[in-house]
Amino acid sequence: MTSTGSQPWARGISLPRRSPSLQCFALQCLWLAVMASLDGDLLYRLSGAESRYAPLSREHRDVKSCQRVLFENVTHTKHLAAGAGVTGPPSLPLVESHYFLDTVGQSYWDRKEVSVLHQVIPNPLTSLAVLEPGRPGSCDNGTDGRTLVRDTATLNDCILATNAGMFNTHTGACLGNVVSNGVLVQDSGGIQNAHFSLTKDGHIFTGYLSQLDLLTEDFTQLVGGVIWLVKDGASYVDHSLGVECPDTQETGSLERFTSVVSARTAIGHDVEGRVHLVEVNGKTDQKGINLYSLAEMLIRMGIVNAINLDGGGSTTTVINGTLVNYPSDQCQNSSYNCERPVTTVMCVHAPHCDPRDCSGHGSCDLGECRCRGFWHGPGCDTL
Amino acid sequence: MTSTGSQPWARGISLPRRSPSLQCFALQCLWLAVMASLDGDLLYRLSGAESRYAPLSREHRDVKSCQRVLFENVTHTKHLAAGAGVTGPPSLPLVESHYFLDTVGQSYWDRKEVSVLHQVIPNPLTSLAVLEPGRPGSCDNGTDGRTLVRDTATLNDCILATNAGMFNTHTGACLGNVVSNGVLVQDSGGIQNAHFSLTKDGHIFTGYLSQLDLLTEDFTQLVGGVIWLVKDGASYVDHSLGVECPDTQETGSLERFTSVVSARTAIGHDVEGRVHLVEVNGKTDQKGINLYSLAEMLIRMGIVNAINLDGGGSTTTVINGTLVNYPSDQCQNSSYNCERPVTTVMCVHAPHCDPRDCSGHGSCDLGECRCRGFWHGPGCDTL
Repeated sequence: MTSTGSQPWARGISLPRRSPSLQCFALQCLWLAVMASLDGDLLYRLSGAESRYAPLSREHRDVKSCQRVLFENVTHTKHLAAGAGVTGPPSLPLVESHYFLDTVGQSYWDRKEVSVLHQVIPNPLTSLAVLEPGRPGSCDNGTDGRTLVRDTATLNDCILATNAGMFNTHTGACLGNVVSNGVLVQDSGGIQNAHFSLTKDGHIFTGYLSQLDLLTEDFTQLVGGVIWLVKDGASYVDHSLGVECPDTQETGSLERFTSVVSARTAIGHDVEGRVHLVEVNGKTDQKGINLYSLAEMLIRMGIVNAINLDGGGSTTTVINGTLVNYPSDQCQNSSYNCERPVTTVMCVHAPHCDPRDCSGHGSCDLGECRCRGFWHGPGCDTL
Repeated sequence: MTSTGSQPWARGISLPRRSPSLQCFALQCLWLAVMASLDGDLLYRLSGAESRYAPLSREHRDVKSCQRVLFENVTHTKHLAAGAGVTGPPSLPLVESHYFLDTVGQSYWDRKEVSVLHQVIPNPLTSLAVLEPGRPGSCDNGTDGRTLVRDTATLNDCILATNAGMFNTHTGACLGNVVSNGVLVQDSGGIQNAHFSLTKDGHIFTGYLSQLDLLTEDFTQLVGGVIWLVKDGASYVDHSLGVECPDTQETGSLERFTSVVSARTAIGHDVEGRVHLVEVNGKTDQKGINLYSLAEMLIRMGIVNAINLDGGGSTTTVINGTLVNYPSDQCQNSSYNCERPVTTVMCVHAPHCDPRDCSGHGSCDLGECRCRGFWHGPGCDTL
């Protein structure tokens, strides 16, 4: 009933990726050319960044230690999420999906048209999740768990999904802190880069995350990015550049990462506590938006806090199992563009039931169990 | 079984357009902002063009009369379609959908990146159709039958659909000759602009269409555009400009129509007789591609004959019921971009059965009836 995965097309689009001639059957044969993508549109964020991210090799110069002087303890914001405290079925729609064309760049020769996908999620607490690639548990594997966004979306019944956190391009491992549906998937050991999260007490947490925060805040969803774009309604890019503690050989990278035009993914919230997912199409150095312009765009859209997630060739939006943005990675065997397999995704889904399967005695309809036969109770567990 | 329309998401996306709060139900609530689009990105093709198109007011100066001198009788090409004469289930996939980014423009300041959707249809004879907006018969209504591409796609079980023919922007009437699934929907009375069609004897017909052709060629699908882009593997734009008979006050319009950058839709075929649908995102005068560059792009893609269909804000590609391109029309109530309701669409669908409903005694699977119970025969009409 609630399964996007049960739609033949949603499945069919992804299946032929590996063997179109064998796995195509019946109508399930729309073949999006995605064979495998070459990471040809990498943002330059990861030169040396593994040392900042990966728990084992990280030097313990974290953001917090830089910030203490400049920003005292104001290292994150907490904002009440829309729908906090509300019981019963959520307001609809679960996600509003908008397209727009925008002009970025200051000077005539610098000016470019960009195409933007803007998603508004009015009920983030019940319909937004950070997911591991594919099935839960895959970030822990230690091997390359990278998966296409639409495969993860199909497996997890996401109405809409985008790429999310950064990953190690060599090993394919998830990077940064990750909490998925209340489960701490990965503790990066005190990474301080910009994070976006939802807490059990109905707040949206945006900003720098200490190891103490990870222990004391009761996160239900948590994902990390690089560069806190908008803080309290103002651009925070310059500050972020200063405080996200690049060591000497990484400074260049982080500045280039910030100033280069590329495809981008951002997540934030507005004053009403609705979550916004914004993706800008692009290709590193040629097309797209830099993080300064992205922050300005987000502010114009009424977003008060936002962070920058993985971008470049990872930028992917999938609606209804169908890719709807323009990826920039080159496909392995042609000059076409292909989606890049990524690790974590942001997933907009129908509210889950408790228990999710309604004890096997009912179906879940927008978070409420519809019990079969004589079963009753909120979880259909009483006869 | 074979119904895209039976997918809850495909329906859900289009339903809330008119009344999101009332028509949203269960998971069917992804709301693409499409309320109604303002025709703000009109290509200038229609200043006076109604007089060239509409049967009643047309002056009988048609392309044929211009062409006779310059091109004698070579006014169209016929090329054997892929799969002609082949019986049994079609080769899969039914459509390959590719994305790519391309650079167009000659000079540095003229150069722009464009995003392109490229669809390859290997079995055009059995899986490609020209459809009227919404249900069959709607071109005949005489009133505004314009419909969103995805609504037409959902109603007609299209795997993939794009906009197709031009229309009268004042009345919303279909323009040009239209044959849909073997039915002559509209006879424009000798319109000579570039057409694309499939014939009953398995050919792809591209080019200028006389009233005699309409009577003697046995078209199964037929749609008209403006400007024959590629003829026999070479750009035909300059020739088309000369022969598509603009009267004096339209000359400017047709040249501007050809040379302005905008979103574009083209249909053509390659040497193997596979049909290609190509859409370039854009916005008139700001972003996109002119018809000269479009023809060059198509030639690079191996397309040997192609015509230009409706473009600008009409340019729309829908896969699996989901909009996948970036429309350029402004939405009625915001600065977002919205799909424009159009008339005819190009539809890629699973092969139909004969009869389509397998006599009510079976289900259609890739053009072959799977009979229920003791019914048998190709159409499940024998007990």
